[in-house]
Amino acid sequence: MESDIAIGIDLGGTNVRVGAVSTKGILLTLHELPIGSVIGEKSGMTLLGSLIRKTLLDVPGATLLGIGVGATGPVNRMLGTIQNPYTLSTWENVPIVANLKESFGVPVILENDADAAALGEYWIGAGQKTSRLAAITIGTGVGTALIIDGQIYRGLDGSHPEGGHHIIDPSGPLCYCGAHGCWESLVSGPAIANLAQSDMNRLSNSQLFILVNGEPSRIDACLISEAAMGGDEFALSIIKIAANYLSIGLINIISLFVPDTVVLSGGVMKSIDLFMPTLKQAISHHNVMVPASRVNVVPAKLGYHAGLIGAAYSILKLH
Amino acid sequence: MESDIAIGIDLGGTNVRVGAVSTKGILLTLHELPIGSVIGEKSGMTLLGSLIRKTLLDVPGATLLGIGVGATGPVNRMLGTIQNPYTLSTWENVPIVANLKESFGVPVILENDADAAALGEYWIGAGQKTSRLAAITIGTGVGTALIIDGQIYRGLDGSHPEGGHHIIDPSGPLCYCGAHGCWESLVSGPAIANLAQSDMNRLSNSQLFILVNGEPSRIDACLISEAAMGGDEFALSIIKIAANYLSIGLINIISLFVPDTVVLSGGVMKSIDLFMPTLKQAISHHNVMVPASRVNVVPAKLGYHAGLIGAAYSILKLH
Repeated sequence: MESDIAIGIDLGGTNVRVGAVSTKGILLTLHELPIGSVIGEKSGMTLLGSLIRKTLLDVPGATLLGIGVGATGPVNRMLGTIQNPYTLSTWENVPIVANLKESFGVPVILENDADAAALGEYWIGAGQKTSRLAAITIGTGVGTALIIDGQIYRGLDGSHPEGGHHIIDPSGPLCYCGAHGCWESLVSGPAIANLAQSDMNRLSNSQLFILVNGEPSRIDACLISEAAMGGDEFALSIIKIAANYLSIGLINIISLFVPDTVVLSGGVMKSIDLFMPTLKQAISHHNVMVPASRVNVVPAKLGYHAGLIGAAYSILKLH
Repeated sequence: MESDIAIGIDLGGTNVRVGAVSTKGILLTLHELPIGSVIGEKSGMTLLGSLIRKTLLDVPGATLLGIGVGATGPVNRMLGTIQNPYTLSTWENVPIVANLKESFGVPVILENDADAAALGEYWIGAGQKTSRLAAITIGTGVGTALIIDGQIYRGLDGSHPEGGHHIIDPSGPLCYCGAHGCWESLVSGPAIANLAQSDMNRLSNSQLFILVNGEPSRIDACLISEAAMGGDEFALSIIKIAANYLSIGLINIISLFVPDTVVLSGGVMKSIDLFMPTLKQAISHHNVMVPASRVNVVPAKLGYHAGLIGAAYSILKLH
């Protein structure tokens, strides 16, 4: 029906976004609030409930088919619980699915946020009609998701794979995952900032240094990209190093899966144009064993809305 | 029917094996011949035809359901052709499927040999009843295959993924695939031999040196394992290095897929007991983001018969 909608929720470590999505993938209305400072499961659920009610008030006459939640992991899909005290302070064993079901009387589905975003890109984004879609998010962390024939690929016991922690350089920095040189430790936003900060000699003669008023601690991946776009040699060299590491991870995913399409998203990929020449060259060079250069490597289309739209789709696709 | 059989063929670079397999997975009879020296498509197909006829003579009264071929890649499954002039001299664009169909009047299926072996292990080997099976072959090369819910995972355009060429140490040796430090370049039989050969100082004081009569060129992975099992410190240290690299590749596959089971096969894995303690320790250490220590890492059960049995199963599973 035209008036059918699903609520999509993107529950991140910083913000929560709640939107109403039509069966055609149109985001009809959106509400967003910071959630990082909301302490306690009860306050969090109260905030979420009120955002959903606000969203529903924006679409009078719509039929709510259900609520899809894409949440920063770890989540337990089977139990419908959020198990994330790391980036969602105090959100440990929160039965979000049961709570929302009780409050709104509709089906509720919980997904990892990387899976939800990948599903959104598959539905109406950069991965449409793709049999094998790999979606990579490069931001504060690095997340990976696979959509095979429209279905989220699940690992052992329904677990969400964490390709961001596959190892690409054993001599690289130590990550909280326990490994040296995992992908996240080399290409995440903080990792790229660290590359610049640890090269004080060259940093102190760069445009970037002026941009941060001589305070290296203020450097982030966004500023490095900005300086690089302004032609700063040092910033360009840092991007080049990161792009090489990014290439290795992409080559690995291509070698192991040979997906049709790889969709790149996340804060660091806002500057994808700076990375793309290195990525394309490296991938076409690694074309001997698998048809790597036929793999379509593209930026995401849905930006910050991918997770919310994909979460809504997890409900809408059942109808 | 009890008397139904399929012919399974394992076409390698060195030997060809042809067997008759019952619907219950019993290998009823087997014929094997060297094929490396058979030059020309025509001689090769004649040899294959005569082996199949011999095999069928061993099972009088059996109903032949079809022929499954697992061949050393690259193969083109869609066209039913072998495209491998590298390890099968002169076998380029050989229409093996069409030829066998014409000769025997039954359905013929062509698979990459790693996929066929993985399917065999899934059917009656170490990967039975596994929703997500990763099969790794470590021998002269390193091959990977994925079986998801009993189906061979295919990449773009039906291509076979080549996880053996995913990169695990960019400072590693150059491989023919074009990359430095891909998995194969670090853990294949020749790679392990090379590790020993390139450390002459320590090699010359080792038991291994005596085993090869002071001729380093005679060292292979098999002899290194033998010396290691005899307690030779140098050989043990080489195995330890290789086991560490092997662990990284396994951790990567586990991070990206979280399979239920990983089956290890191939010549190098005949000495799996030497590798296992390092593998187990490394995998359990990498347990933060995905449930790595719950992944079942086991040796293959079917040995040299896996490819042939899996190829036969590709026919039998259709009935």
